[in-house]
Amino acid sequence: MTRLRFAPIAAALPATVPFVGPEALERQSGAPFRGRLGANENGFGPSPRAVEAMAQAAAEAWKYGDSDSHELRGALSALHRIRPENIMPGEGIDGLLGLLVRLTVAPGETVVTSDGAYPTFNYHVAGFGGRLHKVPYRDDAEDPTALIAAAHDRQARLVYLANPDNPMGSWHSGRRIAAMLDELPGTSLLVLDEAYAEFAPDDAIPEIAAEDPRVIRLRTFSKAYGLAGARVGYAIGPAALIAGFDRIRNHFGISRISQAGALAALQDRDWLEQIRNQVAAARIRIAAIATENGLAALPSAANFVAIDCGRDGAFARALLDALARDGIFVRMPGVAPMDRCIRVSCGPQAELDAFAEALPKALQSLG
Amino acid sequence: MTRLRFAPIAAALPATVPFVGPEALERQSGAPFRGRLGANENGFGPSPRAVEAMAQAAAEAWKYGDSDSHELRGALSALHRIRPENIMPGEGIDGLLGLLVRLTVAPGETVVTSDGAYPTFNYHVAGFGGRLHKVPYRDDAEDPTALIAAAHDRQARLVYLANPDNPMGSWHSGRRIAAMLDELPGTSLLVLDEAYAEFAPDDAIPEIAAEDPRVIRLRTFSKAYGLAGARVGYAIGPAALIAGFDRIRNHFGISRISQAGALAALQDRDWLEQIRNQVAAARIRIAAIATENGLAALPSAANFVAIDCGRDGAFARALLDALARDGIFVRMPGVAPMDRCIRVSCGPQAELDAFAEALPKALQSLG
Repeated sequence: MTRLRFAPIAAALPATVPFVGPEALERQSGAPFRGRLGANENGFGPSPRAVEAMAQAAAEAWKYGDSDSHELRGALSALHRIRPENIMPGEGIDGLLGLLVRLTVAPGETVVTSDGAYPTFNYHVAGFGGRLHKVPYRDDAEDPTALIAAAHDRQARLVYLANPDNPMGSWHSGRRIAAMLDELPGTSLLVLDEAYAEFAPDDAIPEIAAEDPRVIRLRTFSKAYGLAGARVGYAIGPAALIAGFDRIRNHFGISRISQAGALAALQDRDWLEQIRNQVAAARIRIAAIATENGLAALPSAANFVAIDCGRDGAFARALLDALARDGIFVRMPGVAPMDRCIRVSCGPQAELDAFAEALPKALQSLG
Repeated sequence: MTRLRFAPIAAALPATVPFVGPEALERQSGAPFRGRLGANENGFGPSPRAVEAMAQAAAEAWKYGDSDSHELRGALSALHRIRPENIMPGEGIDGLLGLLVRLTVAPGETVVTSDGAYPTFNYHVAGFGGRLHKVPYRDDAEDPTALIAAAHDRQARLVYLANPDNPMGSWHSGRRIAAMLDELPGTSLLVLDEAYAEFAPDDAIPEIAAEDPRVIRLRTFSKAYGLAGARVGYAIGPAALIAGFDRIRNHFGISRISQAGALAALQDRDWLEQIRNQVAAARIRIAAIATENGLAALPSAANFVAIDCGRDGAFARALLDALARDGIFVRMPGVAPMDRCIRVSCGPQAELDAFAEALPKALQSLG
């Protein structure tokens, strides 16, 4: 049927789905999860001020959202001490990554990332006909040296790095990241995914001028601000690049309610601080649970902990499946040798209690 | 700077913005609008059940939304008596149109629409490198015969038609739309934008099997359901085409709060019915205001009325500007001869009262 043929790039894409969501898994199993610890959501929840702002905004949902996100952009501008022209709000980092690839990568151009890093970035690169080149992790961390070398070899258009890293929780110093900019080839733009930045030590966050033409940074309200379901993130970059998003983005694409929630969340710095503390405590708790079960937790600068299960990917997968059967939703890295781990998101005490109770049973069931 | 160069399609796009939103206009003028009647929003508001559902969902905004929109899809399936596989929810019709063009139109392929029809569709076609061919309106309506002829001449990949039409409010019978499917060339898919369907007479809505491979229909929660700011729409089409969206869409892109609101809005059929009645009454009121001022309202099957100002586009533009200075936000068609009109959205009595008071003053100010 010629009518139902897809355009060439879309026709070549797999029909697979990048992530199966927890609701889909619950429908498959027929039972709700008692520990929702797999998607790096923030189970401590958003600021009550954000919840209140969204509830208020719901009555005004008949209005399209402000296409400029003027107030949110202004607040972000004040927070980061940069001009609004250096900020582009969007429908989460996922949405912004898609726009960035579309804006900058011609079909056939090469993009460099790490084998095992964020799959949704890869999904967008493939989705716009880019060619992915992956370098291995080194010591459970994305490897700046290998990324830079590959960028030179392949004349990469984009180089992706998440700091802190997902799924391992490892991180580099801000100085190492800043040094990467000097090492990049002239063809390459660094895509610095800082989704987990608010959980990281201060010295993991590089000082970079917003107008630096070598990098675009991505931040989100989905993690520390607890608004994953609201779909708001933002990019920070040189004004000439940021302005390019206006050529292709859905100008009225960010929910009005979500804009109100993000603005209120941003202004509640006390809430953010106590979230940071709760997440730090939860990381320690998850590590303790791992140790009690003879497993090793990896250091993490994010709101999750990778637990080394000490065997291969098949074993970790079996453990994950056993946990799921017992109502605990966690995920795991997709690539060896990181796939010896399971990844457990920080969450409230009751959910970590459930994990603590389920883990030894799951391990025992595997013998 | 090679780093900041855009990919070829993006590089060729204009840096202009398709629509300036009312908030941006308010910031320019420094005063809020007292009549927000320009964006075909539904000022009568969403169902209180939808508002309540969104307020409840706000507290759970830390969870990503269900990537399958399972409940919403199920409810839509029941409403339309079609399979969930024939339905794709998305971030409004704007978002779905972008995905559809990306999925089906290769760069350089031709897409047919009407000169003066929905600009955001054109924005997406240009945005993915499609070639637009526009046919004129006929008697203030999109012209099925001309669209079909152009589709044959140009071997069009997509043919866009909105029924009812925006910006004129005109409509065709469902039989005429269904007949278009038989007249389409084998290369073409009809993009039937039914954003305003709930306001139209029953016989304007064609009976089309969901699996008909010749057409994809688009519906929205932004108009009759009063949820423009929530960003939820849906496509109805053959399962093979609908499944294609999974290759490229942002799987977690629809706000969790918005999904809850759309589901609750869909279930409140009484509210929808009274919205229809209020909109019908507002259309009559807007027509009466036009008549009182010596202008002619065009018939409308949508939630807005085009008022023929009896002169040229420059006059209508001046009238629109005079109204804006007096706090009334309306829009107008962008193309002659429809640009002799201004387009006034249906809204609550107080806002129409404000329009009724402002219109004669604005006309008088133009002499």
